[in-house]
Amino acid sequence: MCESNVYLIDEKGEEKLVFEGVNEVSSYGGGLCLENIFYQRKYILAKVKEISFLERKIILERISEDE
Amino acid sequence: MCESNVYLIDEKGEEKLVFEGVNEVSSYGGGLCLENIFYQRKYILAKVKEISFLERKIILERISEDE
Repeated sequence: MCESNVYLIDEKGEEKLVFEGVNEVSSYGGGLCLENIFYQRKYILAKVKEISFLERKIILERISEDE
Repeated sequence: MCESNVYLIDEKGEEKLVFEGVNEVSSYGGGLCLENIFYQRKYILAKVKEISFLERKIILERISEDE
């Protein structure tokens, strides 16, 4: 089964792992809802910057409240 | 190998298939660059609304020029 690890670009421009084994990502309240293979959820005020199925990686970048 | 079909939500709110077999999505010029398993590319002024690895589906929504 396909799933990905989700990373968030921090203030220093580095990728920080925020959630593992994610198989569903959906828009939620101006940000995103991440759901993993254990049906655990995480909400994050960010948008998708990059998706790599080859590397099984989703990279998010933070969005400001007023965006 | 994991890849997805990419759909765009049209003016009527319906999902229209825009690209098949996509394995890389990256931010590009305010929109997205989609790349498929044949290394073909498509550029689209949109953002990611939903990713479903279970359904192998990425849903995009159009963004206006000034967003």
